[in-house]
Amino acid sequence: MTQLYPTAAVLIIGDEVLSGRTQDTNLNTIARFLGALGIDLLEARTVGDRTEQIVEALNALRAVHDYVFTTGGIGPTHDDITADAVAAAFGVPLLEHPEAVAILERRYGDEFNAARRRMTRVPEGGTLIANPVTDAPGFQIGDVFVMAGVPKIMTAMLEDVAPRLRRGAVVHARTLRVSGVGEGAVADILTAAARAEREVSFGSYPFGHGSVGEIGTNLVLRGRDEARVEAASRGLLAVLGQAGIATETVKP
Amino acid sequence: MTQLYPTAAVLIIGDEVLSGRTQDTNLNTIARFLGALGIDLLEARTVGDRTEQIVEALNALRAVHDYVFTTGGIGPTHDDITADAVAAAFGVPLLEHPEAVAILERRYGDEFNAARRRMTRVPEGGTLIANPVTDAPGFQIGDVFVMAGVPKIMTAMLEDVAPRLRRGAVVHARTLRVSGVGEGAVADILTAAARAEREVSFGSYPFGHGSVGEIGTNLVLRGRDEARVEAASRGLLAVLGQAGIATETVKP
Repeated sequence: MTQLYPTAAVLIIGDEVLSGRTQDTNLNTIARFLGALGIDLLEARTVGDRTEQIVEALNALRAVHDYVFTTGGIGPTHDDITADAVAAAFGVPLLEHPEAVAILERRYGDEFNAARRRMTRVPEGGTLIANPVTDAPGFQIGDVFVMAGVPKIMTAMLEDVAPRLRRGAVVHARTLRVSGVGEGAVADILTAAARAEREVSFGSYPFGHGSVGEIGTNLVLRGRDEARVEAASRGLLAVLGQAGIATETVKP
Repeated sequence: MTQLYPTAAVLIIGDEVLSGRTQDTNLNTIARFLGALGIDLLEARTVGDRTEQIVEALNALRAVHDYVFTTGGIGPTHDDITADAVAAAFGVPLLEHPEAVAILERRYGDEFNAARRRMTRVPEGGTLIANPVTDAPGFQIGDVFVMAGVPKIMTAMLEDVAPRLRRGAVVHARTLRVSGVGEGAVADILTAAARAEREVSFGSYPFGHGSVGEIGTNLVLRGRDEARVEAASRGLLAVLGQAGIATETVKP
């Protein structure tokens, strides 16, 4: 893939997501975070707590994308195997990081047991990602950022990750809300608009299916050149108006 | 992978998930659905609205798993390219399915335009998946089930998919809720329990991090032999009690 902007992938690690016990929200948080930095999130994978599966997915993703963000599996229990898998993927040893040891010694004192010591292990060459919530750090190795699965901690870790990333031009969005007709009624107009302006992507996201209430669709225009997105949005709004289709512009 | 039970993967298709505009919930719905049928969901991928990316992911997943479930990209607009991509992945032509044409003719009458006609296209050899919400069907080809992205429609389509699947033995779960201590305090006990009972998986999911309120962790035991899960749960509860750690059993 040739990309003008940095690209990224997310690797979600955890049996609890695949069993349905947990509804993942980290992908959405990371997607918004990367969007604000102008980095294109192109792919995500979810795997279970299996070393082989993690190694394979991580190596596939980091071969293609500028950045990979992982979530989950860095706690103190036996099913937390992400650090081991990342070290294996990079072919380097997993070592206790002195700075991480110091941080957790401070936090736990006499209760700094073997299980908690597991959380200080970082693949050789890795640097820490600060965890202002519970102290146990994530880590960066190469262009891979290894973060916690607990949403509150993961979100906090992104603060420390942001300054390390190369930014791209931000993608701008405009939403046109079409009410009273389904997306099949506006598809031809949308297709024509998309053909006429290749620098802007046109998405259609219907709402209110089959329900008694309002139906309609959100037309979302996205692109890096804000003036072109704005112009395409005005143009589409005009054409929809001419076709007698009620449309309002809304916050993206 | 050698698996005693049917395995499955989910392929989520849609720029809106990767841009952060939409929080996916379909993966969780499908995970719970498959869990109830005893089918192991081992992997999920999220890709954008790009034919090449969809084809590659779909072929990788269907080479390894018994079933693949896709969501998204089967509507009437130009960005709905899933049917095209699935046909390409299978190397078969994409044809208007007569039954789908009849269904949508009935629904739309005079408003059955070219865009809506796109929704009748099915890869050769495919069969329809009923959509009781908005009629436009999904389809099955081989062991791949192609469903809508709108959660309400996707969920309804699973009703028609269920009878087509080979079932496995259901996985049973027990949750022990440990309060007042972090997971680092129970990790050794959990590791010992996991080593002693290999037919049961032991997960640990902390809650209440860094907040002022209660902290603790949910220990989740899962396995196909309910008696062994129950025995392991009672055993773990007893050991935790001996260690003076407050624990309650809760609904899984």
